[in-house]
Amino acid sequence: MSTAGKPITCKAAVAWEAGKPLTIEEIEVAPPKAHEVRIKILHSGVCHTDAYTLSGSDPEGAFPIILGHEGAGIVESVGEGVTSVKVGDHVIALYTPECKECKFCKSGKTNLCGKIRATQGKGVMPDGTSRFTCKGKPLLHFMGCSTFSEYTVVADISVVAIDEKAPLDKACLLGCGVTTGYGAATITANVQEGDSVAVFGAGCVGLSVVQGAAARKAGKIIVIDVDDKKKEWATKFGATDFINPKTVDKPIAEHLVEVTDGGLDFTFDCTGNVDVMRSALEACHKGWGQSIIIGVAAAGKEISTRPFQLVTGRVWRGSAFGGVKGRSQLPGLVEDYMKGTLKVEEFITHRHSLDGVNTAFKDMHAGDCIRAVLSYHQ
Amino acid sequence: MSTAGKPITCKAAVAWEAGKPLTIEEIEVAPPKAHEVRIKILHSGVCHTDAYTLSGSDPEGAFPIILGHEGAGIVESVGEGVTSVKVGDHVIALYTPECKECKFCKSGKTNLCGKIRATQGKGVMPDGTSRFTCKGKPLLHFMGCSTFSEYTVVADISVVAIDEKAPLDKACLLGCGVTTGYGAATITANVQEGDSVAVFGAGCVGLSVVQGAAARKAGKIIVIDVDDKKKEWATKFGATDFINPKTVDKPIAEHLVEVTDGGLDFTFDCTGNVDVMRSALEACHKGWGQSIIIGVAAAGKEISTRPFQLVTGRVWRGSAFGGVKGRSQLPGLVEDYMKGTLKVEEFITHRHSLDGVNTAFKDMHAGDCIRAVLSYHQ
Repeated sequence: MSTAGKPITCKAAVAWEAGKPLTIEEIEVAPPKAHEVRIKILHSGVCHTDAYTLSGSDPEGAFPIILGHEGAGIVESVGEGVTSVKVGDHVIALYTPECKECKFCKSGKTNLCGKIRATQGKGVMPDGTSRFTCKGKPLLHFMGCSTFSEYTVVADISVVAIDEKAPLDKACLLGCGVTTGYGAATITANVQEGDSVAVFGAGCVGLSVVQGAAARKAGKIIVIDVDDKKKEWATKFGATDFINPKTVDKPIAEHLVEVTDGGLDFTFDCTGNVDVMRSALEACHKGWGQSIIIGVAAAGKEISTRPFQLVTGRVWRGSAFGGVKGRSQLPGLVEDYMKGTLKVEEFITHRHSLDGVNTAFKDMHAGDCIRAVLSYHQ
Repeated sequence: MSTAGKPITCKAAVAWEAGKPLTIEEIEVAPPKAHEVRIKILHSGVCHTDAYTLSGSDPEGAFPIILGHEGAGIVESVGEGVTSVKVGDHVIALYTPECKECKFCKSGKTNLCGKIRATQGKGVMPDGTSRFTCKGKPLLHFMGCSTFSEYTVVADISVVAIDEKAPLDKACLLGCGVTTGYGAATITANVQEGDSVAVFGAGCVGLSVVQGAAARKAGKIIVIDVDDKKKEWATKFGATDFINPKTVDKPIAEHLVEVTDGGLDFTFDCTGNVDVMRSALEACHKGWGQSIIIGVAAAGKEISTRPFQLVTGRVWRGSAFGGVKGRSQLPGLVEDYMKGTLKVEEFITHRHSLDGVNTAFKDMHAGDCIRAVLSYHQ
């Protein structure tokens, strides 16, 4: 019997308040309104941004909420006027939507669609309301996705259909981590053959930057991480060098400038630590080196440097979702994955059912986890 | 009788120590060594960077020194191996040299030649010695130029010959101020038709940015200055709007984002104030706005912002000498000036003999001076 047009009762991991473990609850998911899509989520990665909001450090984080933003599933039903996807499509949820109509989408200069930014930031659907209810209370949506639920509702510009032959238990990682890093290297930085690259932080995003730089045939790809175990990971994705900054007897930026004869062409911060961001900038080559901030800093933290660093030609920029336009460009990345030219499943170190979501958060903080994937409906 | 190969005795304004007025002295200028050029300086602009070093705020400033870096004159003699210019050439001194051979010059990505950087920074010629003597003491060179002297010696990569029909009492401004601002808009930022631009600080450099943006047919050119008298100047060079931030009841960045429907495509700091630099960045449009730092900050001052500003697509960069390669590109700017498409003499508000150099510094601080030009040998 079709569930279209009716509320669905299902399981979800609910974050009732900051700093507390998630609890698995039975929730009600309302049917999609006009220009909305209800997705049966099958798999979702667990990302540091979920943990950051859960921790309460994000001043804009509000509760109760259903976290998760790296998910893949199948379209269960669509609201009026939806043409971007249809029932049965295999899809990835997009926390960076693409309306193709707003000033941002039409600029040709950015992937940051502005159409539903205000409501997404507030944790509600574009009409200002939630589709989730639990114990009679509405729950907030997270990053326009809320993938820690067996069913979710997203805007029709926040979802993209992909090749249905792609295994969703891996492809879900293209919803955030892999795409964010790979795109930062290949789109935002547009690394060219022979360029020298340094990547600070070897988690899923950092290793994806490495993979992107390697795909572009960068001449030198140096990974910097305080955990020596990351050396093997870095090598696996194409790094040429690994440095543990704790083993270097001078500031890491100074050391990098020395060993690269003047600094790097591109550096990437994948740590969210503002001191590391400064080191990444100052490790750039005078005259042209560009540093790209990907990591999300803690609330209130600021980056600093002497302006002379910029006047002498270094460029400081950032990247969100790797500069990738989700609806236009994500299917291409799925194709690359299917052809075997883009590693995705290699990032997955842990798997859990929805019940294991709190374990997944613990694993993440322990450090031997690159990516944990949750699977539902099993 | 030719002076070639012999020391020349002439007048120069000597800065004996920080914070003291310059004194006009008789100095001795040694003949140029190999790959050096001795120039009879006819005119020199007076720039804030001269005043900054004289003030003692520059931690790298050393004394005694002959300041001045915006000068034009005629080649008096050349050392062995010089092919870039010949005796009698009308020239502009270049504080940003161009060797065309180093890693920087050959990169195609920057105008920051690295060949003589170390010695220029120390105030000496590439062989490590000075060509200036006064009362038996060697004087330091300044920015590879030292144009507050009737004669100076520069490296052969630090000078460019220009059309001898160009009046040097105006063209000297192309040695720094006009080129720095105009190039920042047309080369570093590469402003395009219809772009919106904000310029913080309406001195010679800021007004030159305005001129560059206007030449590129920018749609909106907003000048921000605390001095209302600058409104007329801004308009003269092509600004469409003028804002005195003291008359605005909210932070200037916020105000600019509001009046431009989201922020500027390009902003330029021409003040050297790190708080203004931050405002300039934060006034940029999300997704693509670029802020270019031109001003020289006081020693120890740092720029700061939340990294989110960059992650959401703003770009922070800088510009030195407008990104202009002096030997390759300055003759073209002189041509533009001769054709009447580049305003130069319009910047000159004050003229003095060499004796008037201290008055020129005072005028600069008084604020009704855009540029003062010193003329020698009169």
